[in-house]
Amino acid sequence: MAVEMRTPIPVKEAIERVIKIVKHKEVSTLPIEQSLNSILAEDVKATYDIPRFDKSPYDGFAINSKDSQGANGNNRIQFKVIDHIGAGTASDVTIKNGEAVRIMTGAPIPNGADAVVMFEQTTENEKGFTIRKSFKQGENIAFKGEECKENDIVLNKGKLINSGVIAVLATFGYQNVKVYQKPTVAIIATGSELVGPNEPLEPGNIRNSNGPMIESLCRGINIEATTYQIQEDNLKGCIDIVEKAMSEHDIVITTGGVSVGDFDYLPKVYEAIGANVLFNKVQMRPGSVTTVAYKDHNILFGLSGNPSACYSGFQLFTKPTIQKMMAAQEVYPVIIDAILAEDFKKANPFTRFIRGKAHFTNEGVYLEPSGSNKSNAIVAIANSNGMIILPSGTRGYAKGDTVKVLLTDHLSYESELNL
Amino acid sequence: MAVEMRTPIPVKEAIERVIKIVKHKEVSTLPIEQSLNSILAEDVKATYDIPRFDKSPYDGFAINSKDSQGANGNNRIQFKVIDHIGAGTASDVTIKNGEAVRIMTGAPIPNGADAVVMFEQTTENEKGFTIRKSFKQGENIAFKGEECKENDIVLNKGKLINSGVIAVLATFGYQNVKVYQKPTVAIIATGSELVGPNEPLEPGNIRNSNGPMIESLCRGINIEATTYQIQEDNLKGCIDIVEKAMSEHDIVITTGGVSVGDFDYLPKVYEAIGANVLFNKVQMRPGSVTTVAYKDHNILFGLSGNPSACYSGFQLFTKPTIQKMMAAQEVYPVIIDAILAEDFKKANPFTRFIRGKAHFTNEGVYLEPSGSNKSNAIVAIANSNGMIILPSGTRGYAKGDTVKVLLTDHLSYESELNL
Repeated sequence: MAVEMRTPIPVKEAIERVIKIVKHKEVSTLPIEQSLNSILAEDVKATYDIPRFDKSPYDGFAINSKDSQGANGNNRIQFKVIDHIGAGTASDVTIKNGEAVRIMTGAPIPNGADAVVMFEQTTENEKGFTIRKSFKQGENIAFKGEECKENDIVLNKGKLINSGVIAVLATFGYQNVKVYQKPTVAIIATGSELVGPNEPLEPGNIRNSNGPMIESLCRGINIEATTYQIQEDNLKGCIDIVEKAMSEHDIVITTGGVSVGDFDYLPKVYEAIGANVLFNKVQMRPGSVTTVAYKDHNILFGLSGNPSACYSGFQLFTKPTIQKMMAAQEVYPVIIDAILAEDFKKANPFTRFIRGKAHFTNEGVYLEPSGSNKSNAIVAIANSNGMIILPSGTRGYAKGDTVKVLLTDHLSYESELNL
Repeated sequence: MAVEMRTPIPVKEAIERVIKIVKHKEVSTLPIEQSLNSILAEDVKATYDIPRFDKSPYDGFAINSKDSQGANGNNRIQFKVIDHIGAGTASDVTIKNGEAVRIMTGAPIPNGADAVVMFEQTTENEKGFTIRKSFKQGENIAFKGEECKENDIVLNKGKLINSGVIAVLATFGYQNVKVYQKPTVAIIATGSELVGPNEPLEPGNIRNSNGPMIESLCRGINIEATTYQIQEDNLKGCIDIVEKAMSEHDIVITTGGVSVGDFDYLPKVYEAIGANVLFNKVQMRPGSVTTVAYKDHNILFGLSGNPSACYSGFQLFTKPTIQKMMAAQEVYPVIIDAILAEDFKKANPFTRFIRGKAHFTNEGVYLEPSGSNKSNAIVAIANSNGMIILPSGTRGYAKGDTVKVLLTDHLSYESELNL
């Protein structure tokens, strides 16, 4: 039996091939409190001027600036306080010569006033207060519309809805917002050796861990994932379950069965269902046999059964696809420079992705591999917050070398209080 | 009326004062699929050896290494294939002289074999295959227990449950796991000018946006937050609602009312309920009046009503508190060096936190302020993914200066495909 020949392509090209064919999903309308982390499918307009009215940005006194002219340390000018405005109320009075209104931050400027004196700039006395400097017209006033005007587009279609966007929507009284739908994911673990969490562990069996790992990777980015029954190494069963998953979800992730072994049926599944294979070999370790295919709107990820390779495949190919399907502008992983804290002497003809832990220190970002050579690969994933990228080459890497790291786990970045 | 004097403390000291008094919450048991992003409250032990049995890490043929001795390009040695094992099954045969078993990745090594020949290392023929190199005892075999042994502690108490931890738990057949409970948060917006999303906007009113912003900041880190009714500037009402919130939640966040204005009742609320104020002035802009207090197990955050200051206060003080309450080892925000892409000439006696957008490029991390001076502050938050930190000083900062940025919004990092 001949071994199938595959042509390995560079990682970057592989990612770009996938992203190129991905289309975003339909638009739907959500209540704003359910829209966090979706992508805006409409421009958002200001429904009124901000500020809505001329207001005081400080606690102090509203005055007419003309009355302050000539004030200095040797010539303090006296003001009489005729009213008191808190935020949320307006004053009916009109300020006349030498008068002032005590005003709190956010309250509307009363009639006749054109400047605000901060408390710290006054000396209070029984009659009111004195000042020792003159004020300019408009000084310490936040003018109606100076931040934005009614009907201004304040947020553009395509923007990720973060907490600031939620605040903007709330400010302008929007209760619903149009967003791009998020894709849903089907997860199918393949391999006759795999058993589920409740099944007995017979000789030759191992428990399915890639399925739960992928499910939690999806959940971590707020993507709904459905786990299908574990598939034994059986071609007909695999074809049926993949077709069912494609009819129910946008993205179908299989783990295992993607190599060139006798029971690696995924290549035959892609053929049987008429999927277009974008690549089936990538210049990377682990996970060189990672395969991505598509048919109509479905994208199929054939991730390796090796847990490290499965994890890398999700981070490199699946996550950017999810981002693009939900119409995100930023689809690629964040990759930064960091300093290797250990030697990595082994040369490799393919780019290596090594599970690592980034430490953010005052002296820079340091990387340590999170598992040594023979340590448990899954434990190394658990102890990682990034993937150290060691490009292919004829030499290894030394402690102190600057290399790239793809950040994966934003909640477990070690950081000093670097202030 | 005299202005209350407050002593501003450095930001770092303020954060440390808070973290010092925070205690972690109780332990509870969760199904593993609900445990993502919680913290392990127990060490996790391996329930069996990994690998569980001597197995093949490759697709190939299991042989006895003695039979391969003397093989070379001019002396190919022939093997006869007597069985075929896929993963998940075991072979009953025992290999004798010159025999081999075809074996797939992950399948158990058959009796009598002590090495695996990869497909690529063979030439197949009708009788079986030939090899042209000798193999060492144990070559290409993954031995039982070489990654970890039964009862080894594979994950330590205190670890964040990421997708890798889920995979470890699944591997070892755990269906439940002990975790530290997460704190819950009460949100109380104060200010007579504030109205909710459905209420009419009278003159002098603005809509409450800090409440929805904080709620989504909590939701973004998987923390349950409950929004209480907006409080008018009324001392008795504020005391009652804060006490109710304290009885129902660990953390109580108020927005507004924390300054020294006539209707800033929070200082009086802390006094009335007998809370210990950790600080009520911080050497930072905006948000210098941010106040943190505690009473028994409750932590109270008096965030500014200014949206930018409110956002900064949450990132600097509340988020690390949440992390520590859930027993996370990494409680501090990630702060990295980056290059200013614009001048910031204004000197400031306090540290400035400016909403900014970090761009991760091949040439480094570049920062642009996400809102100019008079642009809408809330829109600037929406357009940010970090807080640019400009330490106090007598001079400003120039384009090209390296400054620190506190990363806030991991989903909206702009990144080139930096591979």
